[in-house]
Amino acid sequence: MPDYYEKTCTAPVNIAVIKYWGKRDVSLNLPTNSSLSVTLSQDNLQSKTTIRADPSFSKTRLWLNGVEEDVSASKRIQTCIKEARRLRSLYEQQLLRDGNSEVVPLSEYNLHICSENNFPTAAGLASSASGFACFVYTLAQLYSLPNSLSELSIIARQGSGSACRSLFGGFVAWEMGVNNDGSDSMAVQIADEHHWPELIALICVVSDAKKAIGSTVGMQVTVKTSSLLKERIECVVPKRMEEMVKAIKDKDFDAFAELTMRDSNQFHAVCLDSFPPIFYLNDISRAIIRLVEEYNSTSCNYKAAYTFDAGPNAVIYTLRENADELVGLIKRYFMGEEREQIPSGFRADAVPIFEEGSVKQLIRTTVGDGPRVIEDGLLNEDGMPKS
Amino acid sequence: MPDYYEKTCTAPVNIAVIKYWGKRDVSLNLPTNSSLSVTLSQDNLQSKTTIRADPSFSKTRLWLNGVEEDVSASKRIQTCIKEARRLRSLYEQQLLRDGNSEVVPLSEYNLHICSENNFPTAAGLASSASGFACFVYTLAQLYSLPNSLSELSIIARQGSGSACRSLFGGFVAWEMGVNNDGSDSMAVQIADEHHWPELIALICVVSDAKKAIGSTVGMQVTVKTSSLLKERIECVVPKRMEEMVKAIKDKDFDAFAELTMRDSNQFHAVCLDSFPPIFYLNDISRAIIRLVEEYNSTSCNYKAAYTFDAGPNAVIYTLRENADELVGLIKRYFMGEEREQIPSGFRADAVPIFEEGSVKQLIRTTVGDGPRVIEDGLLNEDGMPKS
Repeated sequence: MPDYYEKTCTAPVNIAVIKYWGKRDVSLNLPTNSSLSVTLSQDNLQSKTTIRADPSFSKTRLWLNGVEEDVSASKRIQTCIKEARRLRSLYEQQLLRDGNSEVVPLSEYNLHICSENNFPTAAGLASSASGFACFVYTLAQLYSLPNSLSELSIIARQGSGSACRSLFGGFVAWEMGVNNDGSDSMAVQIADEHHWPELIALICVVSDAKKAIGSTVGMQVTVKTSSLLKERIECVVPKRMEEMVKAIKDKDFDAFAELTMRDSNQFHAVCLDSFPPIFYLNDISRAIIRLVEEYNSTSCNYKAAYTFDAGPNAVIYTLRENADELVGLIKRYFMGEEREQIPSGFRADAVPIFEEGSVKQLIRTTVGDGPRVIEDGLLNEDGMPKS
Repeated sequence: MPDYYEKTCTAPVNIAVIKYWGKRDVSLNLPTNSSLSVTLSQDNLQSKTTIRADPSFSKTRLWLNGVEEDVSASKRIQTCIKEARRLRSLYEQQLLRDGNSEVVPLSEYNLHICSENNFPTAAGLASSASGFACFVYTLAQLYSLPNSLSELSIIARQGSGSACRSLFGGFVAWEMGVNNDGSDSMAVQIADEHHWPELIALICVVSDAKKAIGSTVGMQVTVKTSSLLKERIECVVPKRMEEMVKAIKDKDFDAFAELTMRDSNQFHAVCLDSFPPIFYLNDISRAIIRLVEEYNSTSCNYKAAYTFDAGPNAVIYTLRENADELVGLIKRYFMGEEREQIPSGFRADAVPIFEEGSVKQLIRTTVGDGPRVIEDGLLNEDGMPKS
């Protein structure tokens, strides 16, 4: 038996198709509406975390992408540790009651936590969802917690709201819940990662000069000032959640696409209805929307659906049969590759050609699985980051 | 007494501060909500129309900015002529009943109509409001109609919705009405053009590559597809109309400014909530919003308020004491005049400097009066356009 206990895990990114925007409780990250997301493959985007518990550690330390952070400065991280320790402590008591003689008091040990993303933060892709999901999942593994993923999602949610959805692969709903303590605000899986293998996500990393307002602050501005948010929360989203679950279960891309686009647009609409107004889409984002519209107009069925989070980057969902064509269009109009073909029926002048680098990076990926336990850790023998 | 009868009038442009967006009856131009506008000075922007009625004319003809248009092709123009003729005919009958022996049957004569704007259509400024207001007002003068301006506004409304508001100077409400025939959907004056002489409007004509969707089509898309419009129509606008009337009567620029900006933002929010989404603001528009926000942050009171119609052009309302400063800022950030001063407290890097010509034209104007009768006509002796 080792003197120290260590686990390493990875967790995926998720991209919402019914958007989370608005907190009814900021401290607990309780949302004003339910949301639904697609978990993306970890082959392209993932967070990786190693956590070691060791009685010899004098304090709990955290390294994030190679830089040590002050754990005491992050209330969110402390909350996650505290909650996981509470569950571990309950579990230890249970083990003792069950007659186990050698229960290791892991809940009392300090931790060394090392976390990395395999994608650059500079890309502007939200890393807090995969990061906190990975952090909580790794802690749960380290502590051998008997709790379900939905129960763990309640902890991850307190780290970063949308992190709760990254505890599952496939298609995941975050049920907003009604309790004031957040005990029923958790993630549930709608369908697993094998359900709809034809679905492809194209992530377009969009160039932007402007630093956008952060989502936590932005949500608060919207909740306080938008007179349209209430209608979205009370009437629109509940209906869309039902329709989206059905669309996913039926693998109905037409319904999935229209709901996805409409909900992205409405999220940005309530941002604009906020005061001062919040803008995340820029002229390149708008042109990507135009490109998807024109591409869809070449067929009677939807072939692609755009969605945008709190920034100008687009994620385009499409089916495998259309992916090459769509990649060609994005390269042609936003990445300076003029030789790319235009599909039949696509009017070449429907979208202006933007300069090379307008889309800085294009990531093609699929629906993926939830967090994994892996062998290769990020800490050396002494419990310090390897790199 | 001449063989022909002729009148020439001018009419102003108006810029809404509570926006009109949505028709409950497309044919009658009945709106889904009331709206409120400021009439701008005719020194800068006006339409001018000469109408001659002559029994010798073989048909009714129309010249618009020097180009002859097919009157029979415009249902809107025909409706206005028909309605004005109906009122003239009633008036003629009244005169006959009152014992007048020489009543000229003007309602039966064909018309020559010549209309011009003193601002380029290319500027992207809506000319249909001033144009139809001028057209209906000139017809009413020609026909010596005894009807009130509000009654005439019902006719102008059927030409172009917002035209009804250009029949008055100063501050004008368009009461949406409830009747199906539109008989109570008309403009009323809230305060005249002398009420708030300190108020200044800066019109920023913004460069844009993209041709935006027209407002008639856009409104229909929003009415049919936006799930947030109902809340705006039923709850938000009625309250804002009351607050805006009070702000204007009190000359309360703080209240006026915030309501103006919020309502512009909400109009663009319901456009974005439409499907497919409608975008009128571009990156320059957004930067103008940012500039106004930064300028307002230099004081505890609002110093300026932006508003945007169905295009990227901004209109900024401000008070006379701030106008020079604000003009300097717009010239510096959007018109390539780098030597312009920055006001104290304005952070120079809060707004990116755009290239010269991003704002193509800057028009500084004030609150103005309603339609005027003038002498100098646009038709020659033969009833043909002078130029």
